[in-house]
This record gives sequence, structure tokens and C-alpha cells, in this order.
Amino acid sequence: MFEFRINAVNNRARTGVFSTPHGNLVTPVFAPVGTQATVKTLTPEHLKSINASLVLSNTYHLYLRPGDELVRDMGGLHKFMQWHNPMLTDSGGFQVFSLSQTRKVDEDGVTFKSHIDGSTHRFTPEKSIAIQENLGADIIMAFDECSDPNDHAYIKKAMERTHRWAERSLKAKTRQDQALFGIVQGGVDPTLRAESAKFIASLDTPGIAIGGLSVGETKQEMHDTLDVVTPLLPENKPRYLMGVGTPEDLINGVLRGVDIFDCVLPTRLARHHSAFAPEGRLNLMNASFARDERPIDETCDCYACQTFTRAYIRHLIAAKELLASTLISIHNLRALIRLMERIRILIANGTFEEQSSELLQQWSNNAKRANSGVGN
Amino acid sequence: MFEFRINAVNNRARTGVFSTPHGNLVTPVFAPVGTQATVKTLTPEHLKSINASLVLSNTYHLYLRPGDELVRDMGGLHKFMQWHNPMLTDSGGFQVFSLSQTRKVDEDGVTFKSHIDGSTHRFTPEKSIAIQENLGADIIMAFDECSDPNDHAYIKKAMERTHRWAERSLKAKTRQDQALFGIVQGGVDPTLRAESAKFIASLDTPGIAIGGLSVGETKQEMHDTLDVVTPLLPENKPRYLMGVGTPEDLINGVLRGVDIFDCVLPTRLARHHSAFAPEGRLNLMNASFARDERPIDETCDCYACQTFTRAYIRHLIAAKELLASTLISIHNLRALIRLMERIRILIANGTFEEQSSELLQQWSNNAKRANSGVGN
Repeated sequence: MFEFRINAVNNRARTGVFSTPHGNLVTPVFAPVGTQATVKTLTPEHLKSINASLVLSNTYHLYLRPGDELVRDMGGLHKFMQWHNPMLTDSGGFQVFSLSQTRKVDEDGVTFKSHIDGSTHRFTPEKSIAIQENLGADIIMAFDECSDPNDHAYIKKAMERTHRWAERSLKAKTRQDQALFGIVQGGVDPTLRAESAKFIASLDTPGIAIGGLSVGETKQEMHDTLDVVTPLLPENKPRYLMGVGTPEDLINGVLRGVDIFDCVLPTRLARHHSAFAPEGRLNLMNASFARDERPIDETCDCYACQTFTRAYIRHLIAAKELLASTLISIHNLRALIRLMERIRILIANGTFEEQSSELLQQWSNNAKRANSGVGN
Repeated sequence: MFEFRINAVNNRARTGVFSTPHGNLVTPVFAPVGTQATVKTLTPEHLKSINASLVLSNTYHLYLRPGDELVRDMGGLHKFMQWHNPMLTDSGGFQVFSLSQTRKVDEDGVTFKSHIDGSTHRFTPEKSIAIQENLGADIIMAFDECSDPNDHAYIKKAMERTHRWAERSLKAKTRQDQALFGIVQGGVDPTLRAESAKFIASLDTPGIAIGGLSVGETKQEMHDTLDVVTPLLPENKPRYLMGVGTPEDLINGVLRGVDIFDCVLPTRLARHHSAFAPEGRLNLMNASFARDERPIDETCDCYACQTFTRAYIRHLIAAKELLASTLISIHNLRALIRLMERIRILIANGTFEEQSSELLQQWSNNAKRANSGVGN
């Protein structure tokens, strides 16, 4: 269980297979986010149709609602949401710091108020692991402290605490069928990141997560940080870049040795009518699409693109019909999963690194909205 | 085209096949409503999976948004929404009278203001047919005047106008691949209903609709009206009871010789978390379902019931996840379509009439919410 076999390497980029109790993950992989035990507006059948393999769900949200003990009693997260392929839960650390109304951190843990009803709760490393064991994902995370990326003194303190909490998380773990990943922190400070990478690597967890990125730093800072961290991590463990990201981030991450990604971006964009397309990110609400008989992306094999026109999806948006979110979510997720499939082939062929600039070029349009016909 | 072949008869109940350019409709049939060219929250694949055959869409809504000429230019309604089985559009008459902000009726037509933006529009029988020809459904409706069911003088006036408008609708029709149904009106007055049934029957349309029911009258009045109308209609034409209804209404309608039904009830209930179940209509938001590991209906073959627990759907509702509406819509529509499939078999076996009281008994629970564990 949790064996990571690397099949091909292109400089720092790798493609491999990570085995889990719910099947093999072919890496590099992009994981759709099912925050509340559902990838918003999609059925598990939709996820299968886009070749999703790993799905992430959020410990903080599921602890608050419906409660991790309820999920456990219903047979665990896989059975509850009927996703019988690999799953990953985060530790709740990031949400406690970003979503909860108030929070008080001490050495033992964090006391916070629910964003739903203001009720008071407390997470410790032991509690986070107990919740994640109740949920039952294949890959779980050590409890970490996410710090304000602009407060250097705090970043160091939070990193050191994250290391102590990682040790406590490991000690608290009881299930053998879950892979616990430690999390590298340290902001964008190369010295702290190096220290954190070495420490977390020393814990010998079956995989290692890189946290605290995509939180406001520049792209260059993200790349520089990855350039410090991944060379210090063991080759034979999968690396998970948490909460990242855009198509360019995925390409740049794989180039720097990352194996696993997750992000709400594709589904969040979908709910705001924004779709990945060859000519750039499209706002499908725009009137210029009212009579556009093309699919979102003529090269895409997803259900939305194989079935519907931009004109129809634009009508659904204008008429406030929820099917619009479903269709754009299917497409946006498929676009990133298809990108990862392509990257895996390129790595296997040994041509990923040389073709990466072309790939980045193709996707650079999607960093911003398309100019043609898009008014806002 | 538009041949109606009756295969079996049980007193007044019939089962048959109505042929349309987009395939055969096996009757009696329940049509899901796709008001704005989409059955809310469902893909066409979902509709196929529940064995939907006829889908209704609304002329008033599509005329206003995205516009019938746009739908025509995109290849018509079937292609636009990717439903390649039979479709039906209403005339817009009912919505003009129920939804528009203000309206002024004269002999020639109705001037009304859009419920979306208050803009002024005018429907005449000729305009309604032109719109429906642009939309391109297989079955289209004559433009009718829906009256206040409590104003007897107006009901008679509106019925007479509906007859004149039916003649104008027929004259305005140019497409040969659409079946135009006349609409019987007359409120709950048996004399007016008889007069209207005879008049509309005399127009020799390929099918006949019965309008103006399920608008506030009692069940007894609905049944009495059907008892007056259907015996006066030709045997060899399908009868469509517009906007009806509940499971009991479907059973009672078939008993009285109705062949086609449509209603927003199953999908509207779904959006309010209410599901058809053997023990009665369930409000799945109720806390009593939080740990209920059963499907909505253990006897149901739909995707929602074959896949998910009440506990999971209850969680989706509590977490405001839209997948709840999708899953309950699939189930509620399947429940009514399955009821019709059962009725067709009973008619074919010659036992529908004798088993109808048992069937009504089984469904009587669903007229109201289940008592067990449901607080509101």
C-alpha cells in the first residue's frame, strides 16, 4: 500500500503511479475539490466521465457539517458521497485560518468559531487526525499552522509549530489504510523553506505536501520556493502542492517536480460563467456568445463540449439555469485533467521539458480573459 | 406522421402510440417540464436515464429569452437543448395570463409586459404559432385565453374567443412536421365544457388539449369536467391534460381517458427538498433523515435511489449543495414516469380499472407530507 513507482523522469518532472486502497493514482494528477463531500453541481458519474481519479474534500467543512462521526457511521466518505476512487482530505488548518470567524492559536492547537453559526470549536493535531480517520480518505494531512505570508517572525514561529504538530499528527495516527503526508511551510523565505523541507522529509511520511503557496505571493516567488523545496525532498515520495492552481501553475509545478495538485479554480470559475478555451478564458455570459454555435472548446472531449453550443450555455446563464454551472464545471475540470494527461504522455516520451514553453504559451491566454468579444 | 394507434382499452383508459417526427410516444405519458429549454438541474442524459420521452417547453419564456428567432437560427429547440425525442410547446397563453406584469386582451390578441424587464409585447394566435414554428416542437398548441375560474361571464367570453383563436391558429400554421392541438376551455361549467369539447373536436386537429384545470378548482370539479369532456372527444386522437399534476391526478386522468400530462410539480418539489416516497412525501431537509441509510425509495430504479442515501441527500440540502436538487429531481420525475409505465402495463393487461383504487391508495400518502419524522 502507498507505494510510489516512478515510470519516467524529465529532468525534475516525473510521471508515476501512487497506489492507494481505492486504486492507483497516475501522476502528475489534478484533483477536483469536493469541499462538502460533493464536487459542486456534479454527480460522481460526471467525475468518472472526465477521468477524475483523486478527489479532495475538506476536513473543516465536513467536521462542522454533517460531522465526521456521522460520515464515519455512514461508512466513511467514499461510501457517503459514492466516490470509490482515491480521496484526500486536508487537515482543516488552512480553513481554520482563512474561514473561521475568530481563532486563538496556542502550542496545543487552535480554538475557532464556526463560519456557519459562530459556535466555538477546537482543533489540535490529534483532533484533526481523529476527524480525518473518521472521514477515511486514502491520503490525509498533518495539522499545520498557516501564517500571514507577510509577517516573517510569525512565519518562522508557525513553521516550527507546524513541525511539532506534524510529529504529533504522526503519533496520533492509528489507521494503516491512510497515508499521512507532512506539510512543508516557511512562506517564501528560502532558508525557512529549506529547513522545513529537510525536517518534513526526515519524518519519512509516504508523501509530502507543500503548503502556504498560492496565498498572495508572486509567480516568481512560488517558482523560487519550489526550486528550493523539491530538490530537498526524497525522489521516491509523491509531492503535493496544496491549493494550486491555474493551468500555468500546474505546468510550472510539474516542471519543478510536483506530482499532485488540487484547486477550486475550475469549479469556482464555472459558477462565475468563466470557461477555459483555446482563445483564452471566456465569460460565457457575454452577449457575443448568444449565437455562437461552437462548443466551448472544439478540441475538448468532455460531455459539455461534445453536446452543447456556447449559445445554449450562454442562454442557460442568462436564464439563471443551474445546468450552466454543471456544464462549465465539467468542461473546466476536464480541461485541467486533460492537460495533466498530456503532460504525463510528454514526460513518458521524454519531451515534456522541451515542449513546456509551447504548452505554457498555449495556456497563457487562460491566465486572463479572452480579448475577442469579451467585454469584461 | 402524427398517427395515434390505440393498443388496449380499459373502459375509458387507453394505451397507445402517438408517432411524431422525433419518435413514438407511448401513452399514457408524463412529460417533464423544461420551461427555459432545460429541465431544471438535469442534463438530457439524466432525462434519458429515467426513460423520459416527451419534454415540454414554454413559448412565453423562450420568446422572451433567448428569443424564438435565435432558437430557430440555432437549429430549433431539439438541437438547441439537445433533446432529440418528442417535444411539446404550449401557446404562451397561460403564462401571459399568470406571469406577465400587466396584460390587455382584445379580440385580436393580448398585449402584456415581460415579467423579466417590464418591456411590452403582443401575442396573437398568429404570433404564437409563428413563435412555436420557430421553436420547432413536435406538438404545438393553439393560442388560448385563460380566464379567472371564478368569473362565469368571463369564462364564457374567453371560451368563445379561444374557439375563434383556435381557428386562427390553425389557419396561421405553415409547418407540416408539427401537430397543432386545439384547447378545450370552459372552466368547470359542464355546459360550456361540452360546447367547447364539441367545437374543438370539430376542428379535426391531430390531438386535443384540455386547458384551464388545476387552477384552483376542487378535485371533484376536475374529475366532473373530465367526465363531461373526454366522452365528447374523438377516440382516435390523443388527449392532453395541461399542467396536471399530482400522482393521483395522473391516475384519475387516465381513468377518464387522458393520454398526455405535464407538470412542474416533481422538479419544483425537488427544489424544495420534497421527494415522493412509499411512506408519503418526504421533506429531506428534516433532521430525522440525517442518519437514514436508505435510499429515498427502496423500490425505485433511478440513479439517485440506486446510488445515494437519504443521509447524504439531507447533508447536501443542509450544506446548500445544488446536487440535492438534481438528485431529488431525477427521483421525483422517475417516480411519475414509472407510475405511467405501470399504468400502461395494467391497461395492456386489462386490469387498470380494477387496480386503480389500490394504486390511488398507494399514492394517497403523497398528496401530503409523510407524518413519520417530518416536522413541517
